[in-house]
Amino acid sequence: MIDTHFPIELPIIQAPMAGVTSPSLVAAVSNAGALGSIGAGYLNALQTRAFIQGVKQQTTKAFGINLFVPEEIELDPQLIENANGYLQPIREELGLPENKVSNITAHSDYEQQIQVVLEEKVPVCSFTFGMPRKDIVLELKKNGILVIGTATTVEEAIAVQDQGMDAVVVQGMEAGGHRGSFLHEHYIGLMSLIPQVVDEIHIPVIAAGGIMDGRGVAAALCLGAKAVQMGTAFLTTEESSAHPQHKLAILQAKEVDTSVTKVFSGKSARGITNQFMREMKPYEHNLPPYPIQNSLTKEIRKKAAEQSSSQYMSLWSGQSPRLSKSMSAQQLIKDIMEEVRKISKSMTNQTF
Amino acid sequence: MIDTHFPIELPIIQAPMAGVTSPSLVAAVSNAGALGSIGAGYLNALQTRAFIQGVKQQTTKAFGINLFVPEEIELDPQLIENANGYLQPIREELGLPENKVSNITAHSDYEQQIQVVLEEKVPVCSFTFGMPRKDIVLELKKNGILVIGTATTVEEAIAVQDQGMDAVVVQGMEAGGHRGSFLHEHYIGLMSLIPQVVDEIHIPVIAAGGIMDGRGVAAALCLGAKAVQMGTAFLTTEESSAHPQHKLAILQAKEVDTSVTKVFSGKSARGITNQFMREMKPYEHNLPPYPIQNSLTKEIRKKAAEQSSSQYMSLWSGQSPRLSKSMSAQQLIKDIMEEVRKISKSMTNQTF
Repeated sequence: MIDTHFPIELPIIQAPMAGVTSPSLVAAVSNAGALGSIGAGYLNALQTRAFIQGVKQQTTKAFGINLFVPEEIELDPQLIENANGYLQPIREELGLPENKVSNITAHSDYEQQIQVVLEEKVPVCSFTFGMPRKDIVLELKKNGILVIGTATTVEEAIAVQDQGMDAVVVQGMEAGGHRGSFLHEHYIGLMSLIPQVVDEIHIPVIAAGGIMDGRGVAAALCLGAKAVQMGTAFLTTEESSAHPQHKLAILQAKEVDTSVTKVFSGKSARGITNQFMREMKPYEHNLPPYPIQNSLTKEIRKKAAEQSSSQYMSLWSGQSPRLSKSMSAQQLIKDIMEEVRKISKSMTNQTF
Repeated sequence: MIDTHFPIELPIIQAPMAGVTSPSLVAAVSNAGALGSIGAGYLNALQTRAFIQGVKQQTTKAFGINLFVPEEIELDPQLIENANGYLQPIREELGLPENKVSNITAHSDYEQQIQVVLEEKVPVCSFTFGMPRKDIVLELKKNGILVIGTATTVEEAIAVQDQGMDAVVVQGMEAGGHRGSFLHEHYIGLMSLIPQVVDEIHIPVIAAGGIMDGRGVAAALCLGAKAVQMGTAFLTTEESSAHPQHKLAILQAKEVDTSVTKVFSGKSARGITNQFMREMKPYEHNLPPYPIQNSLTKEIRKKAAEQSSSQYMSLWSGQSPRLSKSMSAQQLIKDIMEEVRKISKSMTNQTF
């Protein structure tokens, strides 16, 4: 239990992986005593509600939802045109027509999603890519919803606490998928980050990044975290809707096979290094920001997925793919907790 | 105790910080039940012997020594001339004369140091920057000396084991000072690295990088390490001979203040980002390799130290400077072990 306010038995949160989390994964995790999370970052308000209701049909336990806080961005048609140019050879290779669109809108259903979360009374709501306004935090809390922020540095964790949120996910450099940075981009190892954050704030810290098994959970608790958030570990479970090629890539990867890239979405994210990342790397710093670049690569990722061509898909993964396993989410959670208990026991038997 | 062969009571090794470790630090650490280590990387054979004897005068306990394995490098006079050119404005600022030397030798007393270690029967000998030849490993082991290698990836850890060494220091991306990489340069967070290494080798794993207190030690043990190696934590102790400005810089630094640079020595190392690193960054990939660049910047670092100008000194530090403290090495070790015991106890009281 994270603290008395948290509606879960086990110190495990399934990371809200937007795009690869299914309602059955969320429900399976919550049913196993951990916290399942909906990754609603890419959904509109209607899809968000449908997803929540899909989870509710499969569990009566608490679960969470994660929203992307939209940023103000400038639309630069020249940047978009350039990016389309860089992407053209890859489109051709996949058999996609030329993309001439240059006035993409950066629309987000964020405000409507908040309304859906309130109406559906989702027990936990977390935020990434920035902080929700104070009035939103207050409104959610007033409705009994636990509010969680995401931070990658001590400064960001303090900001999350100051905004009135109930807990903070602290993301180490090991983490797969998008960086949650919103003040500055820094890459701090989780082992360093957790205790330095814990010493500066009083809200519960949830550790994220490279944690895959009971050893990682026990270590995070020793460092002062109250719970962990695991993404990659759940991505390869049976209930995850990640593409089979994505699962396979993680199951076969080594710890040195991931890197951080902006080329898929315009925002830094860690994934298994593939051809798309290598081919686009020279242009990485001349691409439009998120969510524009994400829109520009959407068709490519979709087509690659249809063709099971993992070299052009985004293969998000943390730095511990060697620890990944293929099993049910329930079994994974059971195994992890068994290992945590075993480690706890052996720790007390140490004679120093 | 790491395992039955290791001559220490506590699972703590003081990192062999070449240049900042004093005989009294090594002895103080060993006297406290941990393992003190001489950082002999920059010493010649005579200095190495004197250092070892200095330690022996202050302790009867086991201690270790670390040697840099020399690499074959090509001497490129043009690279050296260019580097001297880049460094010239900084030399001027510090009041140093122009450096015209372009035929620096990359001499190392490595082979003679091995002889000294054998003659002086130093209980533990560790290696960085590469692997000692198999005949050296055998000779040391035959003389009852424990041999430890350094690795930054699973592949390197396996290589260390295959070379016949007794244990491996696994260095996370958080670590301060020089990277121990010798096959490829990768930056894996310690939380990810430890369990992935532990699963692939059978010799004891010693965790290094960002560990500063009992929380870090307990976490490393949970992840499967048998001991930790701590550098930055000991650098700020009273017995450390680090420059007062270096200690002060660490004591005041935040987790986001360090970065990895090649500009001081020609080899990647993590330290507190300062003016020297910023000014030399544009030339980072056009500098001569270690130990040439190290020789070229030696006078600058020495003069800067004399002037207490921390902006031109190498301020090696891991990613956890917020956890640094100024106290005796003995007190630090005592506090850490007390915290480890407290955490172990609280772990068993968790009810999951």
